Amino acid sequence: MAMATPEVAVIGAGPVGLFTVFQCGTLGMRCHVIDALGHVGGQCAALYPEKPIYDVAGLPTIKGAELVANLEAQALPFAPIYHLGERVEKLVQGQDGQWLLTTSVGAEIAVRAVVVAAGAGAFVPNRPPLQGIEAFEGRSVFYSVGRVEDFAGRRVVIAGGGDSAVDWTLSLAETGAKVFLVHRRDRFRAAPDSVERLRRLEADGIVETLVPYQLAALHGDGGQLAAVDIVSLDGRQRRLEADILLPMFGLSSDLGAIAGWGLDMVGGRIPVDPMTCATARAGIVAVGDVACYPGKLKLMLTGFAEAAHAAHALRAFLRPGEPLHFQHSTSRGLPAAAA
Amino acid sequence: MAMATPEVAVIGAGPVGLFTVFQCGTLGMRCHVIDALGHVGGQCAALYPEKPIYDVAGLPTIKGAELVANLEAQALPFAPIYHLGERVEKLVQGQDGQWLLTTSVGAEIAVRAVVVAAGAGAFVPNRPPLQGIEAFEGRSVFYSVGRVEDFAGRRVVIAGGGDSAVDWTLSLAETGAKVFLVHRRDRFRAAPDSVERLRRLEADGIVETLVPYQLAALHGDGGQLAAVDIVSLDGRQRRLEADILLPMFGLSSDLGAIAGWGLDMVGGRIPVDPMTCATARAGIVAVGDVACYPGKLKLMLTGFAEAAHAAHALRAFLRPGEPLHFQHSTSRGLPAAAA
Repeated sequence: MAMATPEVAVIGAGPVGLFTVFQCGTLGMRCHVIDALGHVGGQCAALYPEKPIYDVAGLPTIKGAELVANLEAQALPFAPIYHLGERVEKLVQGQDGQWLLTTSVGAEIAVRAVVVAAGAGAFVPNRPPLQGIEAFEGRSVFYSVGRVEDFAGRRVVIAGGGDSAVDWTLSLAETGAKVFLVHRRDRFRAAPDSVERLRRLEADGIVETLVPYQLAALHGDGGQLAAVDIVSLDGRQRRLEADILLPMFGLSSDLGAIAGWGLDMVGGRIPVDPMTCATARAGIVAVGDVACYPGKLKLMLTGFAEAAHAAHALRAFLRPGEPLHFQHSTSRGLPAAAA
Repeated sequence: MAMATPEVAVIGAGPVGLFTVFQCGTLGMRCHVIDALGHVGGQCAALYPEKPIYDVAGLPTIKGAELVANLEAQALPFAPIYHLGERVEKLVQGQDGQWLLTTSVGAEIAVRAVVVAAGAGAFVPNRPPLQGIEAFEGRSVFYSVGRVEDFAGRRVVIAGGGDSAVDWTLSLAETGAKVFLVHRRDRFRAAPDSVERLRRLEADGIVETLVPYQLAALHGDGGQLAAVDIVSLDGRQRRLEADILLPMFGLSSDLGAIAGWGLDMVGGRIPVDPMTCATARAGIVAVGDVACYPGKLKLMLTGFAEAAHAAHALRAFLRPGEPLHFQHSTSRGLPAAAA
């Protein structure tokens, strides 16, 4: 089946954003989807992929990562175009009424309508307050790991005490990196068996755990790290010769550019009409945690219902006067249902 | 864990009614659930148990029966008390403010709040227009099959041309009944392999198919059927000696007694405030297809969101002034999660 040109841009690929793609799709509208994270699923995938969720209707228990995979599969027949690892930095309306989005990598996306499904905002890694860190970022300081193999034989400092810090320490050490794990407490918030594996790698000299220490300074040239200074809480200093630093201090959300789009934000959220999810600007709707109205419940399942309301309203906006021959999914099926 | 006395009566055990039990449960309110059908799931279970549903968020495809099973499991930790095969015939408010429900079997249920989740109304079997059929009903005329073994060795007339008629013909014939299948057309709306099996049972003389015929009269005494008269569309008559008649003409929905409860119904639906699902009467809310408001979408997923809104509103109604320490299910877990 030939796919139509996308008419709608969904900002945010969290659960509600993904379900908006499905809802728009069933009403004949194809979507672009933009998310600051490098993967779909928003906080559900980034913050609690392994935690069971109990309150999605029809799913007595499901892990965050599985729910995201299901929602991605549900959107798939409608061929969304994903722009992951990009933030929407500009949103302006052209004279023809189209909305033009510009992302952090300079991509331009023109659509007839926009769905803001940004949750609490774009998730960005927490950056340690180290002088000159910007010069190393993307070259020898990374906030996420791409290909594990690229780290083999390298000296890597991993900073942090949560699951991510511990799990990446194990993963990189086991594929051939020399890892220094720096944490400002002597306890790790990680699964007991992960901590157990960590202790074995320490005993083998592959991992060196430095606690209670925190990052103090970076040394290097031209973006290439040479050493990381760390300092203990009682003032002892050490210098670690290293090629790579991975700060793993979690993610923070940031509404960022959205505040500048003329959407009348209140307390970091966008007021909408709950029946249409319409914002103050025609052609822009908001759904999920970023949307607010009197009586709003911040739940995934209310976000899913908002996605349905928003999609119906956008269809009426984009196809004024066209009657909707609404059928339940049991009668209608889906584009991919025959595949 | 000791279970609290139920404070809420949910009228209707369809998907939205079941999810209301879950939502009330997570907020500390236990429920009675009353449904005219002998099983949970409403029309989802009764009308399309085998059809795939595509538009429940997080479930790319699920059959009606599976969705119902999931929703029943999701409600289970909150120990609902089911009253199945019963219709609510009276709903009156006592002087103490309690609501008193009386069901079709004379059961009385006293609660502090009521959720009407009645969909298009109670599902009742379509009754053929045969003089005196009431006297046989429940004795030798049945609209559903209980224990298949009870039919072994009996002469059974099954009337109808859909899945139910054909499937019960196969099932009863294969467990030892002699079945006459009466249908007013010569084609059956049933799965091809079921029709194939039907043909084999006809060839073996275990099933006799009579088409195009329809039911004309019943004969018998004291509620015990002796024979069923049938007539063809061109006027030929036959008498079938039989012990049991199973009319399988589907279900119709009927709002029945609900219209008399003072809920200001409009076009067979109950107007509510979408944020609280409050009806015209304090302590009675309505959710799902039976509830209406401007902008309403009749979808399961909007019903699920309504269930959440209704439960929060009922909690505020039943526990005025008690602060809600709301936690997401990922943090809080469920009563049965530890089991």
